[in-house]
Amino acid sequence: MNAPVSPVSRVWSGAGRRVHLQEVGTRDGLQVEERFVPTADKIDLVNRLSAAGLAKIEVTSFVSPKAIPQLRDAEIVLREIERRPGTVYTALVPNARGAERAIESRADELNLVMSASESHNLANLRMTRAQSFAALAQTAALARAAGVRVNVSLSCSFGCPMEGDVPEATVLGWCERFITELRADGVTLCDTTGMAWPTQVAALTAAFRARWPGSELTLHFHNTRGMGLANVLAGIDAGADRFDASFGGIGGCPYAPGATGNVCTEEIAHALALMGYDTGVDLALLLDAARCLPALIGHDIPSQLVKAGRRLDLHPRPADFEAIRGRALGR
Amino acid sequence: MNAPVSPVSRVWSGAGRRVHLQEVGTRDGLQVEERFVPTADKIDLVNRLSAAGLAKIEVTSFVSPKAIPQLRDAEIVLREIERRPGTVYTALVPNARGAERAIESRADELNLVMSASESHNLANLRMTRAQSFAALAQTAALARAAGVRVNVSLSCSFGCPMEGDVPEATVLGWCERFITELRADGVTLCDTTGMAWPTQVAALTAAFRARWPGSELTLHFHNTRGMGLANVLAGIDAGADRFDASFGGIGGCPYAPGATGNVCTEEIAHALALMGYDTGVDLALLLDAARCLPALIGHDIPSQLVKAGRRLDLHPRPADFEAIRGRALGR
Repeated sequence: MNAPVSPVSRVWSGAGRRVHLQEVGTRDGLQVEERFVPTADKIDLVNRLSAAGLAKIEVTSFVSPKAIPQLRDAEIVLREIERRPGTVYTALVPNARGAERAIESRADELNLVMSASESHNLANLRMTRAQSFAALAQTAALARAAGVRVNVSLSCSFGCPMEGDVPEATVLGWCERFITELRADGVTLCDTTGMAWPTQVAALTAAFRARWPGSELTLHFHNTRGMGLANVLAGIDAGADRFDASFGGIGGCPYAPGATGNVCTEEIAHALALMGYDTGVDLALLLDAARCLPALIGHDIPSQLVKAGRRLDLHPRPADFEAIRGRALGR
Repeated sequence: MNAPVSPVSRVWSGAGRRVHLQEVGTRDGLQVEERFVPTADKIDLVNRLSAAGLAKIEVTSFVSPKAIPQLRDAEIVLREIERRPGTVYTALVPNARGAERAIESRADELNLVMSASESHNLANLRMTRAQSFAALAQTAALARAAGVRVNVSLSCSFGCPMEGDVPEATVLGWCERFITELRADGVTLCDTTGMAWPTQVAALTAAFRARWPGSELTLHFHNTRGMGLANVLAGIDAGADRFDASFGGIGGCPYAPGATGNVCTEEIAHALALMGYDTGVDLALLLDAARCLPALIGHDIPSQLVKAGRRLDLHPRPADFEAIRGRALGR
């Protein structure tokens, strides 16, 4: 018997397969806004995102309030949000002090960050990668002692804006250390400045999955060069099922003024739902949350879907449609 | 012998396969601009696009100068551009009068248009589809008599903003009539308002290819809901190798103010080149052409790639980088 010939990849048909969408907008988006979003509004946004069914929400960041005053209310926000059963509430922590604050505020998970590129790590975190890793180990130990999950995000996993290509072996080498030495519960490969392309995504995801089939892997893409959704689909095809995204598409790219940052949660959710994937997301509620943003941050948002509506949000026929038809048929 | 198991689709690796990119910006983009772009600048733009290696260029439209004054210089532009050997210079023609003008101006191909949706055809063209088809037949006969190629573009092939879904059988039924009755040299399936999604694209493309393996098929996508590149890739995976796109991403969506229209040529070319497809496009020249647009049309353009640059257009390290490194290593 000949094997059936499938002309197209199975990636185009989700067939009910589960994809976890993880919201980063209240952290990665709001931290770069000029305007301070009032604490009550932040809590409302997170509650809306919970209700919309996101699998994980990066609620806030426990950085120094002096460094990022936009998130100086991290404790209050994380303590006062409604906790939806099944949703993981995570928080970015840059150091042990941040970890203590996040654990006290009942974070389900700490998200630690370093970069795959030495130049980016130095420029962004003012430490060598070796120093960052040592600091991460201390923070991870605090989390484990408190029974809190640890995720490690590796910036520049798909390229560095200063160094260019980052070898796959370098990326996988750091993943190895996160998984074996830090005993991380999850790893996120971050496309920090939108350098990932689908071929690379498929290859790196497949390589990660081959080495660590059971580890929780998240892919974090930016749409800086218009490849966001294509990269998500390449990741799915190679075995990834968790993706970060930002509602409204908020959060910029520091290296490209005016360019888009994070992929937009409602656009990814809309596309994946049409394709038959199970994201667990209630798109109407998610769009409602995104539509709150312009008033809170004081400017338009990158989301195309908020502007255009869902594909079957139809438009009325022109007011003179019957007259047009009558004239046409009278010819 | 077991068949080798391929974990990921071949679509992610172009492996030198040819994809034809067809530029529509000087027609589909400029026609909706408020500002009239001077004729000499239009000719310069087309010449730049020719030099950049686009396979086909929709140079202009032979509509009534009263209806679309932005393109009232169609004859001069089409006559005075430099013709690059191998590039097809096409023009939109709405009727027999337009066909005569385009043929006189030495168009290589006439692009005729009707809609797969009765409501959209009436609202947009003020005729029933049957009336449009009869008019197309007259126009196609003129082209054939003059030895000029005929392409037929079917608007709303992936959905109608007023009616919603358009059955695949309706779309294929019109394609059948274009190919057999009009003897069209090519057919374009147009996603006029950005309703296409990858699953549908793969299915419709595969169905078209199964019935007409040798016909020239173009897919015309809008990025209105962020699915443009993903739709291109789904089309490639199902057997399409020609795609319309607009440099700078110019050309809007009349149903969604502020939303993106056509997929952006330089973004598609950049992504496909990274993936190893052979588009024949010189990306540097194409980006140069797109960078001319803001001054000519008087506003910013949607292209993300013009803002962000190519993925390996690197950024300098911070001015105090060595000081940062020195302090870090001194710890």
